[in-house]
Amino acid sequence: MAVSPVMTEAPFLRAARRQPTDVTPVWFMRQAGRYMAEYRAIREHHSLLEICARPALAAEVTLQPVERLGVDAAILFADILLPIVPLGLSLEFTAGEGPVIRNPVRTARDVAALRAVDAETDLGHVLEAVRLVRAELAGRVPLIGFAGAPFTVASYIVEGGASRHFLETKKLMYGAPDVWHALMGKLSEVLAGYLAGQIRAGAQAVQLFDSWVGTLAPADYRAYALPYTRAIFERLRPLGVPMIHFGVGTASLLQLQREAGGDVIGLDWTIPLDAGWARVPDRAVQGNLDPVALFAPPAELQRRVREVLARAAGRAGHIFNLGHGILPGTPVDHVRAVVDMVHEATARGTP
Amino acid sequence: MAVSPVMTEAPFLRAARRQPTDVTPVWFMRQAGRYMAEYRAIREHHSLLEICARPALAAEVTLQPVERLGVDAAILFADILLPIVPLGLSLEFTAGEGPVIRNPVRTARDVAALRAVDAETDLGHVLEAVRLVRAELAGRVPLIGFAGAPFTVASYIVEGGASRHFLETKKLMYGAPDVWHALMGKLSEVLAGYLAGQIRAGAQAVQLFDSWVGTLAPADYRAYALPYTRAIFERLRPLGVPMIHFGVGTASLLQLQREAGGDVIGLDWTIPLDAGWARVPDRAVQGNLDPVALFAPPAELQRRVREVLARAAGRAGHIFNLGHGILPGTPVDHVRAVVDMVHEATARGTP
Repeated sequence: MAVSPVMTEAPFLRAARRQPTDVTPVWFMRQAGRYMAEYRAIREHHSLLEICARPALAAEVTLQPVERLGVDAAILFADILLPIVPLGLSLEFTAGEGPVIRNPVRTARDVAALRAVDAETDLGHVLEAVRLVRAELAGRVPLIGFAGAPFTVASYIVEGGASRHFLETKKLMYGAPDVWHALMGKLSEVLAGYLAGQIRAGAQAVQLFDSWVGTLAPADYRAYALPYTRAIFERLRPLGVPMIHFGVGTASLLQLQREAGGDVIGLDWTIPLDAGWARVPDRAVQGNLDPVALFAPPAELQRRVREVLARAAGRAGHIFNLGHGILPGTPVDHVRAVVDMVHEATARGTP
Repeated sequence: MAVSPVMTEAPFLRAARRQPTDVTPVWFMRQAGRYMAEYRAIREHHSLLEICARPALAAEVTLQPVERLGVDAAILFADILLPIVPLGLSLEFTAGEGPVIRNPVRTARDVAALRAVDAETDLGHVLEAVRLVRAELAGRVPLIGFAGAPFTVASYIVEGGASRHFLETKKLMYGAPDVWHALMGKLSEVLAGYLAGQIRAGAQAVQLFDSWVGTLAPADYRAYALPYTRAIFERLRPLGVPMIHFGVGTASLLQLQREAGGDVIGLDWTIPLDAGWARVPDRAVQGNLDPVALFAPPAELQRRVREVLARAAGRAGHIFNLGHGILPGTPVDHVRAVVDMVHEATARGTP
């Protein structure tokens, strides 16, 4: 079969462009991961960073949920912090505590010391994984590439890891805005180049994860984050692939996120899908089941899936997803069941 | 001086009733706590639970910020989990990890085993602290009593402590709604009785902390939390003191929180104060500076305080506060400076 014509017709890509689809496409953030036995089997022998560093392993893990769940898109298995390693920062994952960066960035000197990054040479293993996945998918479903948005990546490298209050991040932002803006400028440059590299390697869509941006007041988002996120979307737009803009706790930020860019805006479960869509009416939307709903009994889970679909009301431009990533311990058969529920409930015949 | 007439004129109480004030009242959530040397001195000799258990100590800690900061209200020093001890649950605070409940509530049997609580006998030490504080305040500023809202308290006792994803809480809610509703019914009864006891002991206002309710989709808030919060406000309303209803990450929930009750609705920094107030136009509002702003250089802090005040636009019914509690490490002189900034910027003469 000829790949290109088929791919432009994939429901995921059509929905991202707000074109009618014969079925609502569905995929899940963290659809490859610890909840899946196939993934845990690989993790018995390889660390998270080893999987990311070895294209064959990253490709294998990327494909696991495509085989097992029947989702409408693959998303590259990687970590949003991979690009900080060629910047000159240390990155480790400690059991249960997440990422640790032992040389956090907090001063003008720290920012000046960040190295230039060339995606092709410095992150070539990720781009190679993209090429492998594309070859192995052979056109079955589109492949989504991704990166962290500048604010979210900055928060990790300023805090030295995950954070609850983003104290060091905001102290830098409020107390040394020049340093903050210099850091964000460098990050937006690196992240745009990284995403462009993924697209050139074959990613058919990209998602920008601004997962922690919900901690910002709207005025702070506008002043300290929006310009850098917008720079990435503007640089990538000529490359022609759909772009997804995702965050958590963003009910007050959706209009500003739309302004920053993205063909598809991610919605979490704390805003009803229709209310969220009304704030970004000229974009597609992605979401917004609570990840914990996947732990509910099947009848209750089905009720919740149908509630999301009812709020989408069959409008072109809805990509079904969670409001955040799949949690460890999620029953795989429930995830699989959601794919079927979405497909069965929305089958409309060929548009 | 006669206490009663003075007290009804306190700016905090007037603002809570949306009456004009000669100055915008200001207090801070967690205004007594680790950031303050006077508090740390007491904590060197006493655990958190010891302070709560000993009325003289609780009263002393309650008064520290009144003396040091010049705030317009005192808030009783206590913990929202104190009422779970007479329910029959174990409560410990581990260093750095917060509360731990070793016998969490997850089944119908667990709920049935919860004991009846009588505030006067089972939480008499808290009510005695209220009486002591009132006597020592001698009418200088009003005293706020408080409790956790049923959802937030339930989340701790179901999870066994603090939580990020509220997995066990929502599993119970979605998978065993009868058990959930039975638990929430008991909690709302206990918490209403506890707050009524505080009011009878002398609390001149109360705040209901539904700190973690922002994790709920609006439809879930309506079904699983709102009825129990409303039951508390309805039971307390005849007692005639102003009631504050507070949560974090509630941009999508404000209208429903208003429906549940409260004379004053708490706003966090993720929604502009005027936008939040527009969603609850017939209530007073409290907020909404980002607690991290207290770490900013004084000029930047002042800019942020003035921004909040500008959005309140001098409208009657604004109580200045943070969007959440003061963080450990906050510079005390910055907190004190905010009190002065608010008072100086809003001095309007006698209304």
